[in-house]
Amino acid sequence: MNKNNLVLTGKSLELKDIEAVACGKRKVEIDSKTFENIVECRQLIYELAESETPVYGFNRGVGMNKDREVMGKYFSEYNRNLILAHCVSVGEPASEEVTRATVLARLNSFLIGCTGIQPEIVLMYRELLNREIHPVIPSKGSIGEGDIGCLSHIGLAIIGEGEVIYKGERMASDEALKKEGLTPIILGPKDGLAIVSSNALSSGKGALVLNEIERLVDTLDLIYALSLEGLRGNVTPLEEKPCEYRGFLGQKKSMQRVRDLLEGSYLWLPGVTESLQDPLSYRGSCQVHGSLRDALEYTREYLTLQLNTSDDNPCLLKEERRIISCANYEPTTWVLGFEMLGVALSHVSRNACYRTIKLANPKFTGLSRFLTPSDTRVIAYGTIQKTFAALDAENRHLSNPTSVDYLSLAGDIEDRGTNSVYVVEKTGKIVDNIWWILAIELLHASQAIDLRKATKLGKGTKPVYEAVRKAVPFLEQDRNLTKDIETVYCLLKNGNLLNI
Amino acid sequence: MNKNNLVLTGKSLELKDIEAVACGKRKVEIDSKTFENIVECRQLIYELAESETPVYGFNRGVGMNKDREVMGKYFSEYNRNLILAHCVSVGEPASEEVTRATVLARLNSFLIGCTGIQPEIVLMYRELLNREIHPVIPSKGSIGEGDIGCLSHIGLAIIGEGEVIYKGERMASDEALKKEGLTPIILGPKDGLAIVSSNALSSGKGALVLNEIERLVDTLDLIYALSLEGLRGNVTPLEEKPCEYRGFLGQKKSMQRVRDLLEGSYLWLPGVTESLQDPLSYRGSCQVHGSLRDALEYTREYLTLQLNTSDDNPCLLKEERRIISCANYEPTTWVLGFEMLGVALSHVSRNACYRTIKLANPKFTGLSRFLTPSDTRVIAYGTIQKTFAALDAENRHLSNPTSVDYLSLAGDIEDRGTNSVYVVEKTGKIVDNIWWILAIELLHASQAIDLRKATKLGKGTKPVYEAVRKAVPFLEQDRNLTKDIETVYCLLKNGNLLNI
Amino acid sequence: MNKNNLVLTGKSLELKDIEAVACGKRKVEIDSKTFENIVECRQLIYELAESETPVYGFNRGVGMNKDREVMGKYFSEYNRNLILAHCVSVGEPASEEVTRATVLARLNSFLIGCTGIQPEIVLMYRELLNREIHPVIPSKGSIGEGDIGCLSHIGLAIIGEGEVIYKGERMASDEALKKEGLTPIILGPKDGLAIVSSNALSSGKGALVLNEIERLVDTLDLIYALSLEGLRGNVTPLEEKPCEYRGFLGQKKSMQRVRDLLEGSYLWLPGVTESLQDPLSYRGSCQVHGSLRDALEYTREYLTLQLNTSDDNPCLLKEERRIISCANYEPTTWVLGFEMLGVALSHVSRNACYRTIKLANPKFTGLSRFLTPSDTRVIAYGTIQKTFAALDAENRHLSNPTSVDYLSLAGDIEDRGTNSVYVVEKTGKIVDNIWWILAIELLHASQAIDLRKATKLGKGTKPVYEAVRKAVPFLEQDRNLTKDIETVYCLLKNGNLLNI
Amino acid sequence: MNKNNLVLTGKSLELKDIEAVACGKRKVEIDSKTFENIVECRQLIYELAESETPVYGFNRGVGMNKDREVMGKYFSEYNRNLILAHCVSVGEPASEEVTRATVLARLNSFLIGCTGIQPEIVLMYRELLNREIHPVIPSKGSIGEGDIGCLSHIGLAIIGEGEVIYKGERMASDEALKKEGLTPIILGPKDGLAIVSSNALSSGKGALVLNEIERLVDTLDLIYALSLEGLRGNVTPLEEKPCEYRGFLGQKKSMQRVRDLLEGSYLWLPGVTESLQDPLSYRGSCQVHGSLRDALEYTREYLTLQLNTSDDNPCLLKEERRIISCANYEPTTWVLGFEMLGVALSHVSRNACYRTIKLANPKFTGLSRFLTPSDTRVIAYGTIQKTFAALDAENRHLSNPTSVDYLSLAGDIEDRGTNSVYVVEKTGKIVDNIWWILAIELLHASQAIDLRKATKLGKGTKPVYEAVRKAVPFLEQDRNLTKDIETVYCLLKNGNLLNI
Repeated sequence: MNKNNLVLTGKSLELKDIEAVACGKRKVEIDSKTFENIVECRQLIYELAESETPVYGFNRGVGMNKDREVMGKYFSEYNRNLILAHCVSVGEPASEEVTRATVLARLNSFLIGCTGIQPEIVLMYRELLNREIHPVIPSKGSIGEGDIGCLSHIGLAIIGEGEVIYKGERMASDEALKKEGLTPIILGPKDGLAIVSSNALSSGKGALVLNEIERLVDTLDLIYALSLEGLRGNVTPLEEKPCEYRGFLGQKKSMQRVRDLLEGSYLWLPGVTESLQDPLSYRGSCQVHGSLRDALEYTREYLTLQLNTSDDNPCLLKEERRIISCANYEPTTWVLGFEMLGVALSHVSRNACYRTIKLANPKFTGLSRFLTPSDTRVIAYGTIQKTFAALDAENRHLSNPTSVDYLSLAGDIEDRGTNSVYVVEKTGKIVDNIWWILAIELLHASQAIDLRKATKLGKGTKPVYEAVRKAVPFLEQDRNLTKDIETVYCLLKNGNLLNI
Repeated sequence: MNKNNLVLTGKSLELKDIEAVACGKRKVEIDSKTFENIVECRQLIYELAESETPVYGFNRGVGMNKDREVMGKYFSEYNRNLILAHCVSVGEPASEEVTRATVLARLNSFLIGCTGIQPEIVLMYRELLNREIHPVIPSKGSIGEGDIGCLSHIGLAIIGEGEVIYKGERMASDEALKKEGLTPIILGPKDGLAIVSSNALSSGKGALVLNEIERLVDTLDLIYALSLEGLRGNVTPLEEKPCEYRGFLGQKKSMQRVRDLLEGSYLWLPGVTESLQDPLSYRGSCQVHGSLRDALEYTREYLTLQLNTSDDNPCLLKEERRIISCANYEPTTWVLGFEMLGVALSHVSRNACYRTIKLANPKFTGLSRFLTPSDTRVIAYGTIQKTFAALDAENRHLSNPTSVDYLSLAGDIEDRGTNSVYVVEKTGKIVDNIWWILAIELLHASQAIDLRKATKLGKGTKPVYEAVRKAVPFLEQDRNLTKDIETVYCLLKNGNLLNI
Repeated sequence: MNKNNLVLTGKSLELKDIEAVACGKRKVEIDSKTFENIVECRQLIYELAESETPVYGFNRGVGMNKDREVMGKYFSEYNRNLILAHCVSVGEPASEEVTRATVLARLNSFLIGCTGIQPEIVLMYRELLNREIHPVIPSKGSIGEGDIGCLSHIGLAIIGEGEVIYKGERMASDEALKKEGLTPIILGPKDGLAIVSSNALSSGKGALVLNEIERLVDTLDLIYALSLEGLRGNVTPLEEKPCEYRGFLGQKKSMQRVRDLLEGSYLWLPGVTESLQDPLSYRGSCQVHGSLRDALEYTREYLTLQLNTSDDNPCLLKEERRIISCANYEPTTWVLGFEMLGVALSHVSRNACYRTIKLANPKFTGLSRFLTPSDTRVIAYGTIQKTFAALDAENRHLSNPTSVDYLSLAGDIEDRGTNSVYVVEKTGKIVDNIWWILAIELLHASQAIDLRKATKLGKGTKPVYEAVRKAVPFLEQDRNLTKDIETVYCLLKNGNLLNI
Repeated sequence: MNKNNLVLTGKSLELKDIEAVACGKRKVEIDSKTFENIVECRQLIYELAESETPVYGFNRGVGMNKDREVMGKYFSEYNRNLILAHCVSVGEPASEEVTRATVLARLNSFLIGCTGIQPEIVLMYRELLNREIHPVIPSKGSIGEGDIGCLSHIGLAIIGEGEVIYKGERMASDEALKKEGLTPIILGPKDGLAIVSSNALSSGKGALVLNEIERLVDTLDLIYALSLEGLRGNVTPLEEKPCEYRGFLGQKKSMQRVRDLLEGSYLWLPGVTESLQDPLSYRGSCQVHGSLRDALEYTREYLTLQLNTSDDNPCLLKEERRIISCANYEPTTWVLGFEMLGVALSHVSRNACYRTIKLANPKFTGLSRFLTPSDTRVIAYGTIQKTFAALDAENRHLSNPTSVDYLSLAGDIEDRGTNSVYVVEKTGKIVDNIWWILAIELLHASQAIDLRKATKLGKGTKPVYEAVRKAVPFLEQDRNLTKDIETVYCLLKNGNLLNI
């Protein structure tokens, strides 16, 4: 066992682990006891396969075909057909990071032992990760009660019939398997449904988005702190005492963080601020960021539960030696968490816009219009407001809910949906837009700090200001601002400014 | 102290208490120690009033006027003007229940001691409740950073200038106060802002809505259980074991409840159901209801926090003998909870519709079309589907978010909003629509049970079925269905069927 | 024939006529030639009733029952049952005005001659209008492919089984019919479907809303003109020439109207305005109002078409002596017009808010903050901004589309919807909210005009200003502003200020 | 003059022309008389530049800087700075087609003569098109009152400072200009604002989207006709007569088209259909498609007006020898048209889904489940329903309005917005999703036709069926359906099936 590897048990997967494996290419192992159980479960499947009890998707068909019997000798053909007939998703393939997150999410939930999948498939999923063989998964086609139309493409890859990205190259999966000395899987009873019947695409992708939101909210606090220094804003609302009388967890955290970042800042000097009360966008920043933290916490809790519990249907009950129908595929709680996050994000988005608008306004800063270094010569940050306003409008649009817009399918049997994949995707788009918005705020904050000649910055804000200025100099002349925004966006998106 | 009275301390108000006081007219008392503290806080205000430190809304103006000095001798006039200038809300007055909830919410938060309000006002709020003097509060005019434009109307009433509903009659408030032997208040320093600067309308009303949602989700489980009996549905998905492998709290609770309700039902008899898997709307009902429970739990937790912590700005810090600006008026976390609840409710709404559609379809029930007692003679439950579909569309519409749609006001100082009052109101409307939808489902379930001659109902479902049939007989002939729906709606809305 | 009466022909009904009949209680007559045709059509129905060709809803059932045969001797019972089984709508009854508009819309479309309804019913509808017998129509229950679940309640009334509002009193319909010496109808073949299968509720109500929007847009121009005078704004954007280079019809109309209203105003005096360019909310008002006019024109055109063409299914083709299935019940085009109007209205709503915000800001007006008559003594129009902001947020919410949110009903036969009734209703709610918003703008404009001592107002704006000041005096002291807003709202809503 | 070239006059540009130039790389010329006028207008600008009258963006700054004087000798530097300071848009660059459409739209509106731009720039725009030099325009950053933050990137390219795509390669613009022997522009008075102050990105892109919608609606009719043949549906609703009684233009066109396509089809044979009334999704297809046509017509009319009228501000009035402020930048009417189109598209989207669902259901077709060729062996079109349902949910989400979600910018001067670029973009995304949905419907229709052995297809549908079958064979075995969908999507998207 390699100490650097992530050991999977089916019940201990953290969101951070998913990022490490998906983005950092950390390798994975399967806990040996857990694997033994998988082998035993498979044995049980073979026993049950010979029994008479009809089980959905096992010895009976799926969807409208749930009354069709599947007989033993056809298991292999039936399960291959099931994979093929489920390959229905279309559009842009998932990124390699999302694909890895998906494979990992499904691999982990195999290990819970409610699937009865053949152990070779479990090992194959491990190898897909460790050898970087990434099935091509077209991303549109899940209504979010299981991402079955998408996950089938993983199935296609492991039986050697689909396509993968292997070492950056798109190729036939059998070719990649061959290069790595792996043998394509021959499917047995229940394997088809076990592969497809899971929310692993939305939950895996969801884990990546939640990790990004966590970085985002920390960044939000940081940039707010810098903007406050740019504004020469009032630090009274950061006082601990009134916050204690309020008690909301997220805002406590944001407020503590901002106080820490601003330690030593000129803002704490007596008489520095003249404004009795700054605009609400400043005064309530920690509260609004805190609300995003609260919503994140809710969603994280339930998504973590999703990742470490079974979403299989039917569900194998090993102790009772049965396999039964259930509704464990239902992800509604955490999908609703994402819908709430969308609205929470639209709040922090708009709040950042309003803070930035204030930094360009002499009435609030006492500095020049649009933070120009020369009123007569340089236009500076005027039109740039359009950019964040346009992105904020997109965020408002994306924050509308979508999970309930499903149709009744499969002969009216499948009359539920959550659109989990799309819900997660739209949330991720909002996050990306906010990085752009914050890049513009950071440009403003830095320019204001320069114009103000505020040298005594906080112990946490100072190095960030310096890093920005290393990448983007003071705006002395009008120049192509698109480039400046892009530069800062990259610093933020990559998380570089958080770990200074 | 009357044992039946609710004793308020500022830190122990439960959502249930608000319902008892608002709807059940329970009387309130103020804990004596708590009241002593209020008196001491007021003393401190007088001291501070003589100091030189500028404090927003205290010895300085509010909003764009925050730089205007307010001098001691003008406190009374200034605070009366403040109340008048804040009387800006329009439209339908809040119901008396909502008004009581609002007064109670504000009264309780006075008691925390961050307000510095004169004790006479605190006592007056108590009397408004106990003597049923209900200020007329036009309900539109809050952007949800404090419901200041609405709460002012309570202020108007206690200074004897507004209107109230007293014993069912709308009258001038001074008249009502006189009838009860109460003296109108003369406002002193900080009283104006203390009266208006609070989220008491949205949080009070919100408490009533959350209580109603709690009854709703219990009712949802109940009606699902009856529909399952009407459908002769499969009880396998109610098994405990797979649910344990899932671990979501809300769904556990719903599943346990449905199992209890169905104890003894014919559904558990061997061989009773033929369907291998029922439609998802049936199979996943407990999961979807459970997700509503989860969202409710989140919102309840934070709304309870809201009700028992200070939302004052500025905030009086008694120990430190200061009064400072803060952002405790920010309610975003629980407002987002309501936004999420809206989406969760749209899910249970649609799911109930789909369950009902199935009950009218012979393919799923084995019964007659539209549950007619006579194919050739009676049309029965055909067109009635339009009604729930129309209501469900409204719910989908109402579930769209609205909290972020605020404008920047007051000279760009007030550039935040949550529209909390409207968010709560739209949530309440969805709930009401669902009662209608469930009334129709219940008519279907009962008719299906009759047609099926299913006599052995569950121990929890049977008395409910009987109560329905007492109110609305079996549909033997076509008749005006609007009346039947209304009858069952009243049974449900009043909670009568829950406590059988 | 009474010259004051509206003569109906089935092809000449204007939106204005509907208002006259619905709100003004104008009496109606039926063109005699048209009525003869109705009698002939009925004759044809009796002939066809004896033929063998199956026709939906005529000698066959409706919805999922469309394969059920209806035999001649049961026509009366079948049609009565059909009415009863279609009485499914719930909730608040339509207002008497809306009910009248509905009866009129259906009456007019009877006259086209595609219905084959018995002439006595046609006459009865006329009497409902002329004798002010208004069936109680619960308003929720239409999915907008025919308002069948609502219109049935008119059917119920004319057969003497439902309820009506007669001379302001709610009573059993047979009682009201008796008082007026009218005999309840006995239904014959096709009568049931003819009564219910129509979009008359949404189209009738829609006509009233469109008429109100027409008044609204004229009022918008008017109030904009007054605000421009309050602001001492730049009139350059009103110049005709650039508008000619643009060519949009609606904006031409608004611009011409504003120029006319401002004729003689001090604004045209040389050197009066100093601002090179006013805020866009002022500069583009005529353009935005014009876009509302354009959207209104589109919707009016198609709604008028709706009101004067047949929405019957099946459709009687008299010349061909047949009755056939069709999809003339589909109202999508004009429903989409209403959806667009919702968004157009949200634009004028927000634009009015921004104009009002400017009037309170010294930076733009050169006047006092919040238009106070005394900086030190009077708070004036500060908090009032919350009210229009809250209403504007509601408008943004209401402007979301809803027409596509339908379910598949009636055994999956009825898998279309438009939610036309709700679409029209939400549009009407936006309009009402805008009256409130404009009331507040008008208060601002008048106060600014007073403070500015601008005596030379336009020939169109001056009398309006005077009418406002007659109703609401200059704000000299802080007072309860809710009352002022209500007063002006009533002036606007009633259209009193338009016809000065 | 080359006869193949498009001759531009500023008042004759059709949507089809934009497609020919943007996608077909048709070359453009400028009408010589028109060009003479441009030269004269420029002369006027030089005269006015020496006058004293302040003009926004000409001898005065823009936005909050509108009071800043710009002096003659600084025109070149000022205008270059203006371009640089307006380069603020971010994100994915516009496609080359969209870029060409944008350049063309702006070039055409230059020719109206309200701009006063230097003629060399006009010629340069022509060369950008004819020599395929495509400026890189990051696409996010317009709030839709002029796409100024995006169009600036064209300005950057023509002064030789930005980047372009030239013959497929991204390079510095001065390099590309050099290769083509073109000299970078030196900007003079008003040139900067003339380049950026236009809605050319949204209107150019909008023109491409409208053209695509026109193809889409023709395709919708076509596929509906094939599905009707697959269903063996009732053709009665296609009869002309009832449609005449209705009179909606769009539906007349769709109905005529479907009748033409189905000429000679087996569907017209007597006794072929048994269903009295097909599901509404079939019966009302022409009506719903017609409503899309109506909405398209409205939007096309106003977008064409936009393209052939001036959107300049300030506006040069040559005859009057003045330049004045105006609001011709306001595009609200046609932006609202796009918002309506979004909702109209969501209707055709959902309707296509419901038609497809019916084709998979034996109850409606009399064919096998999910159109399988073998009940026991092949799963066929079961899971594929998830794909269109997921795409339809996206469409529902995208159809939400967004135009009103703007912020107040530039010191509260720019308090209007329409988000036109994003509105157009989301509409385009819906269209693309519908191509996918229709691809799946077409697979169903073809499979149903095969299973039904319906050989006698319509004269318009038959060749299309054959073309599909040439590309995708009958589904005999389960296979990777993603590939089949992609194949048909390409046929549809490219318009290949329309011109058979």
